Parts: sequence; structure tokens; C-alpha cells
Amino acid sequence: MVWKITKIGNPKLKNPILISGLPGVGNVGKIALDFMVDKLKAKKFIEISSYEFPHCVFINEKNIVELPTIELFYKNFKNHSLIFLGGDVQPLDERACYEFCDTVLDVFKGYKGKEIVTLGGIALEKIPKKPEVFCTGTDQKTIKKYSFKSKNANELVGPIIGVSGLLTGLAKRRNIPAVTILAESFGHPNYLGIKGARRLLDLLNKTLKLKINTDELKGEIEDIENEIKDKLTKTKTISQHSDTSYIG
Amino acid sequence: MVWKITKIGNPKLKNPILISGLPGVGNVGKIALDFMVDKLKAKKFIEISSYEFPHCVFINEKNIVELPTIELFYKNFKNHSLIFLGGDVQPLDERACYEFCDTVLDVFKGYKGKEIVTLGGIALEKIPKKPEVFCTGTDQKTIKKYSFKSKNANELVGPIIGVSGLLTGLAKRRNIPAVTILAESFGHPNYLGIKGARRLLDLLNKTLKLKINTDELKGEIEDIENEIKDKLTKTKTISQHSDTSYIG
Amino acid sequence: MVWKITKIGNPKLKNPILISGLPGVGNVGKIALDFMVDKLKAKKFIEISSYEFPHCVFINEKNIVELPTIELFYKNFKNHSLIFLGGDVQPLDERACYEFCDTVLDVFKGYKGKEIVTLGGIALEKIPKKPEVFCTGTDQKTIKKYSFKSKNANELVGPIIGVSGLLTGLAKRRNIPAVTILAESFGHPNYLGIKGARRLLDLLNKTLKLKINTDELKGEIEDIENEIKDKLTKTKTISQHSDTSYIG
Amino acid sequence: MVWKITKIGNPKLKNPILISGLPGVGNVGKIALDFMVDKLKAKKFIEISSYEFPHCVFINEKNIVELPTIELFYKNFKNHSLIFLGGDVQPLDERACYEFCDTVLDVFKGYKGKEIVTLGGIALEKIPKKPEVFCTGTDQKTIKKYSFKSKNANELVGPIIGVSGLLTGLAKRRNIPAVTILAESFGHPNYLGIKGARRLLDLLNKTLKLKINTDELKGEIEDIENEIKDKLTKTKTISQHSDTSYIG
Repeated sequence: MVWKITKIGNPKLKNPILISGLPGVGNVGKIALDFMVDKLKAKKFIEISSYEFPHCVFINEKNIVELPTIELFYKNFKNHSLIFLGGDVQPLDERACYEFCDTVLDVFKGYKGKEIVTLGGIALEKIPKKPEVFCTGTDQKTIKKYSFKSKNANELVGPIIGVSGLLTGLAKRRNIPAVTILAESFGHPNYLGIKGARRLLDLLNKTLKLKINTDELKGEIEDIENEIKDKLTKTKTISQHSDTSYIG
Repeated sequence: MVWKITKIGNPKLKNPILISGLPGVGNVGKIALDFMVDKLKAKKFIEISSYEFPHCVFINEKNIVELPTIELFYKNFKNHSLIFLGGDVQPLDERACYEFCDTVLDVFKGYKGKEIVTLGGIALEKIPKKPEVFCTGTDQKTIKKYSFKSKNANELVGPIIGVSGLLTGLAKRRNIPAVTILAESFGHPNYLGIKGARRLLDLLNKTLKLKINTDELKGEIEDIENEIKDKLTKTKTISQHSDTSYIG
Repeated sequence: MVWKITKIGNPKLKNPILISGLPGVGNVGKIALDFMVDKLKAKKFIEISSYEFPHCVFINEKNIVELPTIELFYKNFKNHSLIFLGGDVQPLDERACYEFCDTVLDVFKGYKGKEIVTLGGIALEKIPKKPEVFCTGTDQKTIKKYSFKSKNANELVGPIIGVSGLLTGLAKRRNIPAVTILAESFGHPNYLGIKGARRLLDLLNKTLKLKINTDELKGEIEDIENEIKDKLTKTKTISQHSDTSYIG
Repeated sequence: MVWKITKIGNPKLKNPILISGLPGVGNVGKIALDFMVDKLKAKKFIEISSYEFPHCVFINEKNIVELPTIELFYKNFKNHSLIFLGGDVQPLDERACYEFCDTVLDVFKGYKGKEIVTLGGIALEKIPKKPEVFCTGTDQKTIKKYSFKSKNANELVGPIIGVSGLLTGLAKRRNIPAVTILAESFGHPNYLGIKGARRLLDLLNKTLKLKINTDELKGEIEDIENEIKDKLTKTKTISQHSDTSYIG
């Protein structure tokens, strides 16, 4: 068993658009995604676990262990559905990342998915006061749809590494329109790119008419900030099974 | 051949509880486990070797080579059996750790296993004078049973890495009640977490009514300490086949 | 899916000679190869993508994502054809490099390929003013054909690592004549071995009578230099998904 | 294709004893093995190449490329045969080392092999004036046979890593008598353990009655020393295809 896909319920989805935001630079994508799932009360319908994820468990607020998972949530609107792809981890290595993205695309195809938006961060060497947003994708039409107040990604960045790049690249091969939207953030592992995440949320709120009450954004984000900061701090204090020294 | 499971005898086991303690932070789990196996005169009934273990041999006290193995021992009590999972190594990498834990759970299921307890250490930045013990698990009932004088693990730790975390996480997926018990220790590779191991032993002695004579604990632990210290020191002096430089 | 070979058209080739030049020390091989493809207006006829390539996308000048690919181009001459093997990446690791080279040799065999020339750089500790060229191969006859103004590679180098070495080594096993031609360059990752690439081009121009107008060489190379320098600089600024810290 | 075993001729062997000496600490084992093959005019009868070896080629004295190989040589005596296992490389990683050793044991079993001797070095922190030799193995009888002027390996060393340890460990599982003989050497990658190799040769000369003229030993070893030193120096100067920087 390498990839385990567990369906929780079997929702009917209309012309779904998939939005991904996993851990990465400044956790910009993850913060934006988790906020949308929370605010829109999106429902989990698929869990993915894998031998290709880190060999650890997380401990939840009830003191119960949880295997690393990546989850799919959905929210139905009048004429279309949104699917949110979030989680605690990214696949372990290059091959696993290819396999994971193709697995997600297979699932998405099963729901007759129409469009993909991946979210991520760009690691700057210092904290950006006003993070810029950059957009690239599979085709000009889709880029145009999502490039509200954003710049062309080829102005700045080289390769886009990980799920947020590869999912878009592999979508192009299958002729699924897709964009990658990246907000500037700070490269330090403990930094949380709240401002960058807000830029991504503003863009999606505008393009996808999410009608998320932006007044609530600030406070909510601070909560998420504390929760994640907490997790990251804890992570530093323990390394439960370090490599033993007998291998030398 | 990747995983090789060798059965030595075929014991009858009643409602077995599995306890694991492998090398890791301060060797806390390994020290506690090896002590119990010794004191309870538990008998070896399964050996696991694997291409997924380090590519080396150990040399025993009779100057004979031994492949790295992880071993299962059992001890029958009136109404239940204990299975002890110990050894010299942990699986090499993330995937192998998942495979190993699922292999152990398959074996455990074959014996109609009832409950799992994994032991490990938490790496602090300095030697703890009075190591605390932390407990997490698959459900509140099992955690309560094993949380004698221990704290909730989510107070302190982030992810629990390696067999002691993953075995509990994968047990949860199969609806096998399981707990992970971690004692504070020191992060230095040569440090032996004797005090932490004693905390784990006290807890198990109490919860599982092991009736181990605790008066003997101190001396015994010192012996184990010297034996392991010896092994670790030796390990430092040789690296029989270093990576050759032509790959450079 | 691990290796994906996409044929674009189905050209007729006569006694083809394959020339490879992928990223590596000073990008010497890549610069020379890309220049030949450009000047000779060679046409792409095969694209290779793979789970064994880096898990990223590049962004092209039109701001569109592109999966990492290695490409085959061809150019027909009167009595023979040239096949050019170029791209943005090398396979990820040792095994993948063996698989890739054997895959290329299978394709080449399908076209009744006659000869192979691989191009690469040698990393010196400082910038060489007059880069020397070194030649080795599968047999003396082929080496002699390609060793114009070059030295024996065994005067200087130890193992030749990567596609430029392995393709020649695996060709020898299949009795396909092959040479590896290496130009001295500078080991710094940002350095572009333009002068070394010119030495390779001079040698191939002479041996294969490419009739490339060498007057144009300098300017063209400067353009390529800027383009690649640009790419390399960008690469430094972003690392879109760094490894998250929870694995620790 | 992962492991490729090529038979060159099909010799008749009597009760063969296999002796291995591959690159490692001080190249002690390799130096001793290559010297015996040379002096005894042992004939090559098997070549092993593999995707699990380094992805490179070596350049021989005739300036021709050679894939990394591990080779088997034989020499027939009146009542028994010797098989020598030597080469330029060790398998790349842990799994490959297990696979390689089991592959060698399969071949050895096909020739009804009787006994195995593996040679290696122990890395000290400074150059030993009088290198000691240490011996361990699968059983006391075989250890006694080969322990001429040597000490018990468990006096000094911890795990024995790589082919010289694992071949003996896996032989034990198949009930093939085997010993590992290790000479002290210096841990620096460029150091050549000539003195240690001589200690191994003395021991084998005595135990196996090889009748190698030990007067010739010194000069011969110096030649080998220069040849290998040459190779190692060259290796330092080039790293033909360094990892390109776009993976970041």
C-alpha cells in the first residue's frame, strides 16, 4: 500500500474548481487555504494518506494521534463547486510529488474538474512590507482570469518546486486549465506569511466571488497564526527518534 | 527479499498486549524494553530482518557476526500475554518505517492482539533532573489506562517521528487501541536516558502489574548502561567502509 | 508512469550521429548544444519527461509553465543525420541516470544510430584562460576521429559522472561507437563556460563539417549567456516549497 | 535491468573459497585483493555491473571508458579453487548492498562454494605504525582457521558496514562458513593502507598456503600504491556533472 484514498461521503459536484494550499514557504498557501475552508464551512470528502508522507504522527487538541494526511474539502455554489486541497504535509520526495499530483488529477478528473488554482509563497531574503503576487499557468486565458493585481511570474521566479508547481504542470499535459499564484514571503522556516496569504485571499475573493467577509480576515488570521506558530515551536523541541549513531 | 520474518516456536498467546522499545532519543525506550525482557525472562519467538535495515553486521560477545534484527519476545500471564518488540535498529527511512509498522501489525493481528504500547524519548537541550513522562494515543480510554503520573503529549510535543509514533498511528487506522509513552531525555547521541527509562518502567509496572522488583532496577540499569555505552563508543571508532571518494 | 516519450512527427533519418549536451559543470555541454540546435535550425521530434526529473515547472517567456523535459532534435544532411539531445535537467539520481541513458540508447537503436558524441565540462578551481579539451571513448578509431586539438582524457580526469559519461559507457556495451568530449571550465555554479563551449563547437565544426559561420559565434553565445545567467539568477531567489520543518 | 552478470568462460572449480576486497577504509582490502589476483595470475570469469553502482565511467590506461564493475577471478589449486571478488566500487546504498551480497552468494552457491573470507580496513584517527588485524565470523571453527596473529574483532569494533560485513552476515544465514578480517588503517580518504594490506596478505599467505613470494611484496605494493594514488588524485580534480543549481 503506497497511496490510500478514503472517500467520506459522495457529494455531487458541479464544474468543480480545485484550489490547493499545502505547507511551504511562509505557509502562505496553507494559511490562505485553511482560512477559506473554515470561513466557507467546506466539508471534507476525501482523505489521502501514504507511505510517501513523513513517518510520524501529529497530536491533535484532544491529545489523540493523527497520521499525516492531505484532505479534500468541497463547497457547492449555484453553478459550480469548489474543491479545497489542504493538509499538514507535502509528499516526501520528487517521485512521490509526481505520483501525488497525478493521483489528485485522477480524482479530479473523476469529478469532471474544470480548473485548478495552486497557491504558494516566494521566499525573499527579508520580510516584505507589501508582498507582491505573481501568476503563471497553463494558458493566457486562465492566467488573465486569475491575475487580478498580480504580476507575471516569469518576471521574477525560476522553477516552481513542489505541488504548487507540478500540479499545474501536469494539469497542462491533460489539458486542464490551471494557474499557480505565488505571494512574496520571508524564507525563514518559522515565519508565517499572513500578509501574503491575505493577498492571495483578496485575489480569490475577487475572482471567484467568494463573498468572504474581509472584515473578519484580520482576527481570524491571527488565530491561525498562533495555532501554526504553536505547532512550529513544538516541532523544534522534539525529534522523537533521531537517527541512531550506529550507522556512523 | 525485503522483509524476512522467522518464527522460532509457535507460542499460544492470550489477548496479547504489544510493547515496543527501539533505539532512539537517549535509547530510553530500548533500555526500558530490554530490561523488561530480561527481568520477565520473556522468550524470543519471532525475528525480523530486512533489506530496509542498515547494511552492516554487529559482533556479539562470542565474536560472532549478527545481522541487524528486530525481535519479538513473549511472556504469558494468567489472563493475558505480553509481546515485547525490541532490537538494535530502526528501519532505514520513511517508507521502510511505514512498511515495518504495517508488517508488525499484520503479525499482531494474527495473534488477535488487543493493545499496543510504544515507548520513546523526548530530546531536551540539557539533561533533565526529573524527567517528565508524556502520553498520547488512539483514544481517551486507553490513554487514561496508561497515563499514570504522566502529562498529555500535546502539551509539549509536535510530531512523533519513527516507529513509536507510526505504530500507534497505523494501529488507530485498524481500530487497535494504542498509546505512545515518551520520557524526557537528553538529545546528545551518546547520552543514555536511564532515568527516563525508569519512569517508563514505573508506569508500566503500575499499569500492567508487572511485579518487577524495583529494588533491582538501579543495578541492572547500570549494567545495561555500561553495555550500551560500550557499544556506542565502539561504533565511533570504526566506520568499516566509508563512502569512497570517487563519487565525489 | 516513470518515463514518458512523446514523438512529435516521424522523421526519416540516415545513419544518425547523436550529440548530447545537458546542464552540468559551467553548462559547457548545454551551451554548445543549444547553439548548434539554433544555428542549424534542427527540429524537435521527441520529448522525454519523467518522474525521475526534478519535481518542478519552469516558466517560459510567455509566462506559461513547462514541465522539465529532455528533447531530441534532428537535422538531415546529404549522407547522414544529426540528432541533438538537450534539455533543462539531468535525471535526479544514479539509478535514474542509468535508466535514462538506456532509454535514449533504445530510441537511438530504433533509428539505426551509428555514433554518439557526448559533451561536458571539467570543473577547475579557477577560470581557465585557454580551456583545454579532452577526449575519451569506446574505441581508438572513434576517439581519433573526434580528437582534433584535444588531449587524452586519462591524462587528467578520473571518473566521468552523469549522462555524458554513462551514455558513452553504456553505448560501449551495445557496440555503438561513442566519444565523450570535455572542455575545461570553472566549478562555480553560476559560471557559464562560454569559452569552453566554443572549443567544443570548433572541434565539432571541424570533425562533422557543420559549416556553422563561426563569425556569428561570439554574439550568439553572449545572448545565450545572458539568457542562462538570467535563469540561474532567478533560480537563486526562490525556493518555492522548501522542506517543511516538522520532519526535523 | 538492475543487476547484470556476465560470464566469461565457464571454469570448473573445486570446493571454492571466495575472498573479497573492495574499495573502503584505506583501500586495505582492495590493495590486498588486487595484489593476489596479479601474483597468482587469477583469471576473470564473471563481471557484475548494475544500475546500483555509481553513474559514471572510469577511463583506463588506453584512454577507453569503462563502466563500474565488480569482477570475479578464479585460480585452481590441487584440491580447491580460490575465487577473488574485486572491483572499483561498492554498491550505492544499503538496499543495494544487501541485494549485491545475496547475488554474490547465489553465484557462489552455484559453484558449490565452501567458505568466504572478506577483507577490510578499520579507520583509526592517525596512521598506525604497526597495524593490528582483527577477525570475526560465522562460527568459532572458521574464525580459528583464519585468526593467525589476529585479535577478536569484538575487542574493538562495533558494526561492520558494507560488503565486508554484510557478505559474512548473509553467509551465516545460509550456513556458509565465513570470516571478516580487518586491518587497522587511517581514516583519511586519500590514505592507502599498504601496511595493513600486507598484514592481510601475510595472514592469507599463511592460512591458505598461497606461496606468494613475499620478497616481491614491497615493490609490487608500491606500484599499486602509485596507481591508486594517481586515480584518487584525479578523482579530486573533476566532478564532471555537478548537481545543477535549479533544484535549489
